[in-house]
Amino acid sequence: MVLTRIHHVGIAVKDMDESIERYRAALGAELVHRAVNEKEGLEAAFLRTGEGEVELMSSTRPESPVGKFLAKRGPGLHHVAYGVSDIAAALADARAAGLELIDSEPRMGMHGSLIAFVHPKTMGGVLTELVET
Amino acid sequence: MVLTRIHHVGIAVKDMDESIERYRAALGAELVHRAVNEKEGLEAAFLRTGEGEVELMSSTRPESPVGKFLAKRGPGLHHVAYGVSDIAAALADARAAGLELIDSEPRMGMHGSLIAFVHPKTMGGVLTELVET
Repeated sequence: MVLTRIHHVGIAVKDMDESIERYRAALGAELVHRAVNEKEGLEAAFLRTGEGEVELMSSTRPESPVGKFLAKRGPGLHHVAYGVSDIAAALADARAAGLELIDSEPRMGMHGSLIAFVHPKTMGGVLTELVET
Repeated sequence: MVLTRIHHVGIAVKDMDESIERYRAALGAELVHRAVNEKEGLEAAFLRTGEGEVELMSSTRPESPVGKFLAKRGPGLHHVAYGVSDIAAALADARAAGLELIDSEPRMGMHGSLIAFVHPKTMGGVLTELVET
């Protein structure tokens, strides 16, 4: 697998508006996209940090995956996403290396890139995402 | 503050050798530097992930900061580091934005770059590092 860069880090937050403002004021990170995924109970906001991005994530209902994460661990780092040039090849490599995939096939992410998640169980406790760049 | 990219993510691990091998085999991430900081009770290994890096962190004694992190939260994401072109200017901006700094002045990091940490308290629970690139 050939990684191109750290594409983004996902950060679970309680208050989306406050967090966007915090990242803007503290780091000069500009909002580039904000959307709600009702099926996953997720609101996400992507902010530019140079060549990478921060994905702020809040829950639209307490029983959503991010809602459960916030209840259990509180706000903080949620996942890391690496860029790959060919996500189908990367998933084949991941499978061959014995990684447990959450997404066995690439799917469309919230801002129009093909993504797939690898289970934290086989990544030392780190929820890991691959993004085709 | 002008961020250049996500410089690295810090990941706390229990077994350094196994974790280096995992990242090599799973993601094709090559080891570029490995060192021990006795004062901080920290062993760190930097692995290349395209333009970014992963910093694997293990403790050399249980009462070290990383040892306490592992005891409390288990292995997983520990911090995120953003690249900045001028760390002195970035720290002045951070101070002006009301961030609580762990390092009030830049200091030399484990692989020869000037770094400074921002307290998670003012970053929504995320331990945040700035690295001069």
